[in-house]
Amino acid sequence: MKLKVYADRMSQPSRAVIIFCKVNGIDYEEIKVHISKGQHLTPEFAEINPMKQLPAIADGRFKLFESHAILIYLACAFPGVADHWYPADVFKRSKIHSVLDWHHSNLRRGADRRLNSMILFSAPYVFNTTIAPILGRPLNPQAAAEAEIILSSSLSKLESFWLKGNGRFLLGGNQPSIADLSLVCELMQLEVLDEKDRTRLLGPHKKVQQWIENTRNATNPHFDEVHRVIMLAKERQQHQLLKATKNEGGSNMKKPLVSRM
Amino acid sequence: MKLKVYADRMSQPSRAVIIFCKVNGIDYEEIKVHISKGQHLTPEFAEINPMKQLPAIADGRFKLFESHAILIYLACAFPGVADHWYPADVFKRSKIHSVLDWHHSNLRRGADRRLNSMILFSAPYVFNTTIAPILGRPLNPQAAAEAEIILSSSLSKLESFWLKGNGRFLLGGNQPSIADLSLVCELMQLEVLDEKDRTRLLGPHKKVQQWIENTRNATNPHFDEVHRVIMLAKERQQHQLLKATKNEGGSNMKKPLVSRM
Repeated sequence: MKLKVYADRMSQPSRAVIIFCKVNGIDYEEIKVHISKGQHLTPEFAEINPMKQLPAIADGRFKLFESHAILIYLACAFPGVADHWYPADVFKRSKIHSVLDWHHSNLRRGADRRLNSMILFSAPYVFNTTIAPILGRPLNPQAAAEAEIILSSSLSKLESFWLKGNGRFLLGGNQPSIADLSLVCELMQLEVLDEKDRTRLLGPHKKVQQWIENTRNATNPHFDEVHRVIMLAKERQQHQLLKATKNEGGSNMKKPLVSRM
Repeated sequence: MKLKVYADRMSQPSRAVIIFCKVNGIDYEEIKVHISKGQHLTPEFAEINPMKQLPAIADGRFKLFESHAILIYLACAFPGVADHWYPADVFKRSKIHSVLDWHHSNLRRGADRRLNSMILFSAPYVFNTTIAPILGRPLNPQAAAEAEIILSSSLSKLESFWLKGNGRFLLGGNQPSIADLSLVCELMQLEVLDEKDRTRLLGPHKKVQQWIENTRNATNPHFDEVHRVIMLAKERQQHQLLKATKNEGGSNMKKPLVSRM
């Protein structure tokens, strides 16, 4: 029975799992669960993942959720996945676990999963600077400021520690691991920010920018294909923001951003 | 060269690593890094862990931080660790990764690592209900209420999902894994709460209570020995709270709670 991947490409960990399958030639069926339509909250999906979050997989009768756990499982259980994705060497593997755990409490930190069940962007910085007004919610400048501190600090640590040396990938690697894929997919969420904001945040971090590009190149054409929804969302959002600015009363600001994605 | 474990027993992930070493007869040297004295922020400690967090290990020249990554490393790299701690079976192992990843975003969520660098309790619920006034900081009832929602929801998921069935441990196991140890050490932080609060939070979750006891029994006498600092802190804190209540001006409320621990 073919591997089933339950995903919404608007969710960054969903994208990481899909790209991993595509790059490694894993035969899978993508089952779209639209967060914007609340499909992850249905009793049917709770049978797959009782935590009602994406992504999740079903490999025969074996069900699994949490994207890092899924990436590790796929790397171990499917033949033909190159060692660099999740090295057998205990020292290299441990360092990858360390990056992935760090990710939870840093880049991904503050990712409010309750918010995530209502909106499509979990990153609080993106939410509080860009998405909130479109959804007819108040901007929260304090939350945005706090989220920016965490984001900037995480980007600095990526630049100065995880990407130190001359390697093209995290931990000095010359080929990507599941950690590169997971973290870069997270950062791609910044694409929906206003260009000025994005440049301000990413601008000082040249190695981070190069690493995003390296990871993209190492996994293309799949990377671009899977991120297409984000790019489309960005275009629609810019259009909607423009419209909202013109319309001071903003009666149409409560329309969901990407309800048809 | 003996394994070095850099730890502060007031930190829940430090305790998990120390108990794991003791239970599995791993020969190690515990290097105490006192968070309350800011010893984790020194340049010397940054050589061990540039993220300036605990715990961290050095096994010869190999350095590692993030407690889950450390527990997995120890289970894989040291001979004689029983399989149940981190099973070789890919399906069982994947489920353990799933619990550990879930832990980051739930029980441990909101654990503010910036706060953690200043105070000894990272759990925001405990901080905002109990610790704040002792440190001369304002209580934040809203933050406490939000943290309680996350904590209660996490406890419910533990009770109804991770502990479903008749197993004595997570995922239906009859012997503990590194996930049991990690999550139970986190919950032991609730010991410092007022008894009434603790009962209100844990009271409805009978399986969780039994599982804490099962994990304690499976790892004693080490569990109790390593948690002794928490119990001592509880006593001192109750004494200090009593004193603070009597002293309305509260000039002595700014003394750190456990400065000599």
